[in-house]
Amino acid sequence: MTQSPKTPLLDQVTYPADLRKLEDRDLPQLAREVRDEMIDAVSRTGGHLGAGLGVVELTIAIHNVFNTPDDRLIFDVGHQCYPHKILTGRRDRIRTLRQENGLSGFTRRAESEYDPFGAAHSSTSISAGLGMAVAADIDKTDRRVIAVIGDGALSAGMAYEALNNAGALDARLIVILNDNDMSIAPPTGAMSAYLARLASGRTYMGFRDFGKKLTAYLGKNIDRAITRAVEHARGYVTGGTMFEEMGFYHIGPIDGHSFDHLLPVLRNVRDNANGPVLIHVVTQKGKGYAPAEAAADKYHGVNKFDVITGTQAKVKPNAPSYTNVFAETLVQEATLDDRVVGITAAMPTGTGLDKFAEIFPSRCFDVGIAEQHAVTFAAGLAAEGFKPFAALYSTFLQRAYDQVVHDVAIQGLPVRFPIDRAGFVGADGPTHAGSFDTAFLATLPGFVVMAAADEAELKHMVRTAVAYDAGPISFRYPRGEGVGVDMPERGQILEIGKGRIVKEGTKVALLSFGTRLADCLLAAEDLDAAGLSTTVADARFAKPLDHALIRQLARHHEILITVEEGAVGGFGSQVMQFMAMDGLLDRGLKVRSLVMPDIWMEQAKPEAMIAHAGLDRAGIVSTVFNALGRGVAVGVAG
Amino acid sequence: MTQSPKTPLLDQVTYPADLRKLEDRDLPQLAREVRDEMIDAVSRTGGHLGAGLGVVELTIAIHNVFNTPDDRLIFDVGHQCYPHKILTGRRDRIRTLRQENGLSGFTRRAESEYDPFGAAHSSTSISAGLGMAVAADIDKTDRRVIAVIGDGALSAGMAYEALNNAGALDARLIVILNDNDMSIAPPTGAMSAYLARLASGRTYMGFRDFGKKLTAYLGKNIDRAITRAVEHARGYVTGGTMFEEMGFYHIGPIDGHSFDHLLPVLRNVRDNANGPVLIHVVTQKGKGYAPAEAAADKYHGVNKFDVITGTQAKVKPNAPSYTNVFAETLVQEATLDDRVVGITAAMPTGTGLDKFAEIFPSRCFDVGIAEQHAVTFAAGLAAEGFKPFAALYSTFLQRAYDQVVHDVAIQGLPVRFPIDRAGFVGADGPTHAGSFDTAFLATLPGFVVMAAADEAELKHMVRTAVAYDAGPISFRYPRGEGVGVDMPERGQILEIGKGRIVKEGTKVALLSFGTRLADCLLAAEDLDAAGLSTTVADARFAKPLDHALIRQLARHHEILITVEEGAVGGFGSQVMQFMAMDGLLDRGLKVRSLVMPDIWMEQAKPEAMIAHAGLDRAGIVSTVFNALGRGVAVGVAG
Repeated sequence: MTQSPKTPLLDQVTYPADLRKLEDRDLPQLAREVRDEMIDAVSRTGGHLGAGLGVVELTIAIHNVFNTPDDRLIFDVGHQCYPHKILTGRRDRIRTLRQENGLSGFTRRAESEYDPFGAAHSSTSISAGLGMAVAADIDKTDRRVIAVIGDGALSAGMAYEALNNAGALDARLIVILNDNDMSIAPPTGAMSAYLARLASGRTYMGFRDFGKKLTAYLGKNIDRAITRAVEHARGYVTGGTMFEEMGFYHIGPIDGHSFDHLLPVLRNVRDNANGPVLIHVVTQKGKGYAPAEAAADKYHGVNKFDVITGTQAKVKPNAPSYTNVFAETLVQEATLDDRVVGITAAMPTGTGLDKFAEIFPSRCFDVGIAEQHAVTFAAGLAAEGFKPFAALYSTFLQRAYDQVVHDVAIQGLPVRFPIDRAGFVGADGPTHAGSFDTAFLATLPGFVVMAAADEAELKHMVRTAVAYDAGPISFRYPRGEGVGVDMPERGQILEIGKGRIVKEGTKVALLSFGTRLADCLLAAEDLDAAGLSTTVADARFAKPLDHALIRQLARHHEILITVEEGAVGGFGSQVMQFMAMDGLLDRGLKVRSLVMPDIWMEQAKPEAMIAHAGLDRAGIVSTVFNALGRGVAVGVAG
Repeated sequence: MTQSPKTPLLDQVTYPADLRKLEDRDLPQLAREVRDEMIDAVSRTGGHLGAGLGVVELTIAIHNVFNTPDDRLIFDVGHQCYPHKILTGRRDRIRTLRQENGLSGFTRRAESEYDPFGAAHSSTSISAGLGMAVAADIDKTDRRVIAVIGDGALSAGMAYEALNNAGALDARLIVILNDNDMSIAPPTGAMSAYLARLASGRTYMGFRDFGKKLTAYLGKNIDRAITRAVEHARGYVTGGTMFEEMGFYHIGPIDGHSFDHLLPVLRNVRDNANGPVLIHVVTQKGKGYAPAEAAADKYHGVNKFDVITGTQAKVKPNAPSYTNVFAETLVQEATLDDRVVGITAAMPTGTGLDKFAEIFPSRCFDVGIAEQHAVTFAAGLAAEGFKPFAALYSTFLQRAYDQVVHDVAIQGLPVRFPIDRAGFVGADGPTHAGSFDTAFLATLPGFVVMAAADEAELKHMVRTAVAYDAGPISFRYPRGEGVGVDMPERGQILEIGKGRIVKEGTKVALLSFGTRLADCLLAAEDLDAAGLSTTVADARFAKPLDHALIRQLARHHEILITVEEGAVGGFGSQVMQFMAMDGLLDRGLKVRSLVMPDIWMEQAKPEAMIAHAGLDRAGIVSTVFNALGRGVAVGVAG
């Protein structure tokens, strides 16, 4: 491991107040030191690198010009917040990023007063900032609110809703559009093309000229009504930019790596703006670190790496990842069925659909960070007889819940939902956990809701989803590797609503939904050894439930335990609802439902989170012992 | 009641094919007759009138020019689809609109092949249409896809996501922007102002000039690349409209009541367009019916009315509506606490916030049809110490689920969620039912989830929500009138997580969440009379649960029944989860959980829906009898 970099200037800067004492001419050196510090830190922890490298100068400039934390600075998504953390009292913990009890990889209200609004999902910053700007207005304070948002995040409708509202409210909000033509993948969509035209077509505005325009527009002594009228006329006659049409004063594009551009613009806006302003800043993702600049993904998210060479540590997998099994199986099935199409919302690599797109480019659609549209677009394809796979992470499917309900489920359209990152996700923490999908889908009439117990089961479920055409169908699978089971050449078509008994016993029944099956089998070994003969079943379906299987388990065992890596309201609730209404609980069956605990669980290794949740081997065993009065009380779920 | 209108021309038109046989010069008369027919029908049924009146000519023109149903016509929201229904084989049932077993008030795939995609929630049509356009492209058919969307619906981010994607995909999609400057309420937002500038600033384009431009752009023989380049240059140099920047060819504004404008434009687009086209059509909501034109709401949604005078039947309420109680209580509390602010997503009247806005105009925000933004905007205000009430219907809160999870709940911000239209909503049918809110909220850690049992309880809950500052809190209440209980001068602050026993008994426990309490009390009378001494409790909270109350009910009764007007996964599931983990089910307590049946229940009177669901007095009683083996089997829930 390399030594920590020398950072004499940064060593004098713990908080933004220290930074404000520096001369403007010192800031480029500070930027170099912040960059070195970040590269060193992330080389040790892994994490998001490229986005932070791109905004070092911007972050320094904002903290230099604005009075944070009283002025509110909101970073959209938060991938780019590491320089901000280094400069806001958290440098001493920067090498704990994304680790248990360490700094979050995102901004977080609980972590610092310099994080006035937490982020992680994309495109929320303008809405939150507008709320804060309106609050400042009502409170008659002089507070400034700055939202920094990437160009990719502008493809989400939520950002547009907020711009639309901000323009109408005429709030004193400063939006900084950080345009690096790159979010996680290169952005798609007409807005992206539009921004590229703006950035390439206009020369960067000299700040002298710019200053003149700004003063003309913003000058405090100029009657506001006249200013507005002039602006209107200008936009109307010459055709303003889209942001001007939305009621923003639009500045830029300016060079986001030049303090000579950034400082005067930000100072002018700070002192003179009294309506919504959008500053279009062009930056380079991965800036200042050659290996990142050269990489296609600009080192968006990296493992630990060697600072000199940029070589990332390879993690040797024990089994194929669920994402890969999904992608490869989808390709296999799509080769045999040309109605299969794939849809991703700006996550081609994360979902594995990049593999699908390579082979079927005309049948794969990256719609941008736009989950709502993704789902209804899929519904349109399904209405025309296609078999759309709308591949989303569990946590991002939340963005499209109404579309799932209204456009897919009510109409019974056969949209397929591969749900990746279901369950605990580890370092990304509570904002990315896949906790609620079973609860919010299984409550919908007519939905088929599956979970894969292992990677072979996932293969079956992909094929089952291709074959099933009677309505919506979902299948969830976790982040990470499979368990290493033998893989079939081709998946089987599963019977809808049928589970399977994996191991037979007589006293204890463990009914698993998803990948907790492996721990159920291990727990069964312990229970058998303790004289408690245990049946283990894989439900496969949370909806429709396998009534025959549940009746059998309920009638022939003393205790039945459901196990799932999801929050209350999902599989266990479906099973208990059925058992209650079927009278299966009337005769004193002991029933327990193991679900995620009712807290927002912080980042840690997934195994640690599962153990803490009591969803591992030990948690299952102790639940049985406790229920049967055997008095072992280790690791029981809350 | 007046006689049905004379409609000689319309009598010859059952399907669009008939309409296509007419001469262009006959179409104005057909429009008059469709209008008369619609006015007569809605005067008898009640329903949505203004929107349909505004699109009579447009609907006729589309069906005249395009080859529906093979060409796909999608109406956004569907409020405006009555003329479409009259012209597509459903005229004989038009006087059954919104009634049990009658026509839906919206488009519906199951109802007609002329409804290729159902609607009801706003802003879905461009996404669905784009999916269909892409499908046509893959299938190499000549099919056209037309999405008709109102200007108000353009404030939703989903519509923007779809435009953004359509422009990039260059799909052959025709979007007709029906600009009447009015959705349910006058629209807000910068986009609305922008459209108004377009509509007022440009003279309506003469179609000769327009035709020339179109041909230049769309002409089949012109090399596409050159066309694009020209278009780029034009947009770049002069500044195109926003729609042009988004990759659409933008036509209009044109007069949506003039067949002389509509027919040549639509024919030209039909024959020549091979990329995304947006036709900006200006119409007048309520057009052609003087009382509607004169009304502020343009007769958006009406009761039965007198055709001659326009006077609507007054329905005399027996008790104040829940919506009014909410609004008046919020005003009352806001008078005493200046941190209370109100937020509505384009539903000021529906949510009652119009009353709040009258008194506190600077503390009330109508953000447009933009639920996602509404919730995160509220979170921004909460982060600054305000007490935002984000008043949404249950069904529309689904649009903001991720924002509720990610921006509010994970951060523990005290946003207040008054949830109107919770439960069955009657004539609006399954798309508007408030079924899932308890399930999708109570699964979230740290949320306080309440339901009002009657209008006095609602008053308590509004005050409780004002007082509670420790995190997010919601309270649900149904459409319609309260039960007529005495109202307190001021609401009380309820203890969080405490229910109440309303009536004491010894054998049967009914645990109600929300307004089913009244039927529980009636059922208790029947059960007492049958010798089954019954306790009735009002849970008030689905989260946190009243553990002491549940333990008491479970331990001292033979049977416990939870009752709620919501889908599985909600209150009953929370109760059963607790009872299972607490061991309360181990000794043979009979437990039943009455929820909405697992179907998309069709429109009917709410009372009929509740009875069908087995959630009424009779359903509760027979559930108890069945569970106790008393063998009465009337109206039991599925």
